Amino acid sequence: MSLLAIGTIAFDDVFTPYGEARMIEAGSCTYIAMAATHFAQPVQLVSVIGDDYNQDFLADLQRRGADLAGVEVVKGGKSFFWAGRYHDNMMGRDTLDTQLNVLADFNPQLPASYRNTDYVMLGNLSPQVQSQVIDQLEGRPKLIALDTMNFWMDIAMEPLREVLRRIDILIINDEEARQLSGELSLLKAAAKIVDMGPRILIIKKGEHGALLFDGDKLFSAPALLLPTVVDPTGAGDTFAGGLMGYLAATDDTSFENLKRAIIYGSAMASFVVEDFGTRRMQTLDQAQIDARIRQFTSLMEVAL
Amino acid sequence: MSLLAIGTIAFDDVFTPYGEARMIEAGSCTYIAMAATHFAQPVQLVSVIGDDYNQDFLADLQRRGADLAGVEVVKGGKSFFWAGRYHDNMMGRDTLDTQLNVLADFNPQLPASYRNTDYVMLGNLSPQVQSQVIDQLEGRPKLIALDTMNFWMDIAMEPLREVLRRIDILIINDEEARQLSGELSLLKAAAKIVDMGPRILIIKKGEHGALLFDGDKLFSAPALLLPTVVDPTGAGDTFAGGLMGYLAATDDTSFENLKRAIIYGSAMASFVVEDFGTRRMQTLDQAQIDARIRQFTSLMEVAL
Repeated sequence: MSLLAIGTIAFDDVFTPYGEARMIEAGSCTYIAMAATHFAQPVQLVSVIGDDYNQDFLADLQRRGADLAGVEVVKGGKSFFWAGRYHDNMMGRDTLDTQLNVLADFNPQLPASYRNTDYVMLGNLSPQVQSQVIDQLEGRPKLIALDTMNFWMDIAMEPLREVLRRIDILIINDEEARQLSGELSLLKAAAKIVDMGPRILIIKKGEHGALLFDGDKLFSAPALLLPTVVDPTGAGDTFAGGLMGYLAATDDTSFENLKRAIIYGSAMASFVVEDFGTRRMQTLDQAQIDARIRQFTSLMEVAL
Repeated sequence: MSLLAIGTIAFDDVFTPYGEARMIEAGSCTYIAMAATHFAQPVQLVSVIGDDYNQDFLADLQRRGADLAGVEVVKGGKSFFWAGRYHDNMMGRDTLDTQLNVLADFNPQLPASYRNTDYVMLGNLSPQVQSQVIDQLEGRPKLIALDTMNFWMDIAMEPLREVLRRIDILIINDEEARQLSGELSLLKAAAKIVDMGPRILIIKKGEHGALLFDGDKLFSAPALLLPTVVDPTGAGDTFAGGLMGYLAATDDTSFENLKRAIIYGSAMASFVVEDFGTRRMQTLDQAQIDARIRQFTSLMEVAL
């Protein structure tokens, strides 16, 4: 089944205790695409870049199964740029620079070929832009997933509430779930968030795994323990990309399959943090993914 | 099989956003005993109290299967007292008062009937006192577990290193594991800690569950999601008590059974936080424990 993904295609400068990388290809749409194309093709990308972007990288994305028809290239424009430095404990980071550039006037236009897509991943962008994508869809997709962040809760709560009423899956982290709901207990938070619209809630907890709420059913996925996290940037987007790619590939939105999709998303996220940007994803093969899925199985299995 | 447990038997004043409780029966030995006696009897307690302690409470502990022969009663002495206030988000707490009282001169003496015990739970006390207990054992127990905290790492690292060489299971939280090892990655931390002596490491992560390291085998247990945590005091001790009680009752220290023991310990901890002190543990029955174990199963099961 087809998957549509909107988000940023960016250049990042990233500084971590393990080193640095400059002007690397990054952005939520990039990470989603790198993960999702391992499972589903085509992944129809919606984004905006300047004509300064790396053509070889885009060609590689295309070869992997990304459809770039919806990626607007602004002549003479500069691509979105972000720079950040991770703290020594890797638990927090400081933004050093953000240059919206062509993203400032992003007005997504879906090519006709995208409008009847089956699965939609709305990466972290303003809720107004996320809504604009839904507006342009012709059929009702089987599943619309949305990622957002506390920034939009702070400055665009009403548009966020509007788009939440139009989606099926919300994917946020635990801190964001608490802020969105005003509840400390994630159980109470989930109940309130489901009342806002999304039928399914996935709460990412980083090194502590992820939680899936679907009606009265609940699943807790562990995270793999990694010896070294080189660059956490894009882990959440890669998780979402793996998850939605798996769902689109299997075309099964049952609770049992959502659980599997979370494990596949977690596996993909566990790879991306092993190197800067998308480097690790470039060399990833199916045997490596399968081996990591087996690690999840052994991490969780207990006979009670 | 018999289980020996050392720790404090205390009075606590506890203030949380949900209310307060004063002069309630608490302390690590108390929580361990309340949980462990659900599975194994007798639980041979080693502690010290003043003659101000609640006799009805002690009689109830005894009826549940606690052996109080090793609990020294200091005539005219006052029992250990702790008072604390939890923050609004329940993630941290401030100690308001600590009165060591009879604990200041605690010099544990094991009754002859305790010295050939099979399972030993060394609750959080100074590593010197924990070592004194091991010194008095006649046979080598099947399993010695130890709980400690960052406080002892700060002021008694050498005695702590000594006692770590004499135990089988170390039970600490993630922050303590990082401090003890100097490693950020829990995988690296575990490897370093195992080199210090304990064959098995259990890392408690509170609302994120627990990790079990046993050789090259690894297990991640989730935590149940609770609508309300009334009083987190004693959750770690209750976890340890449930875990060691289950191991002593089943007399099986295999990796598979350690995993089950962690789930049973987690279930017990999920109950104790539902009310102040040991109140919830007083009314707990086997059917309630069984129901909660089934919740863990459904929280974790996935067919990959």
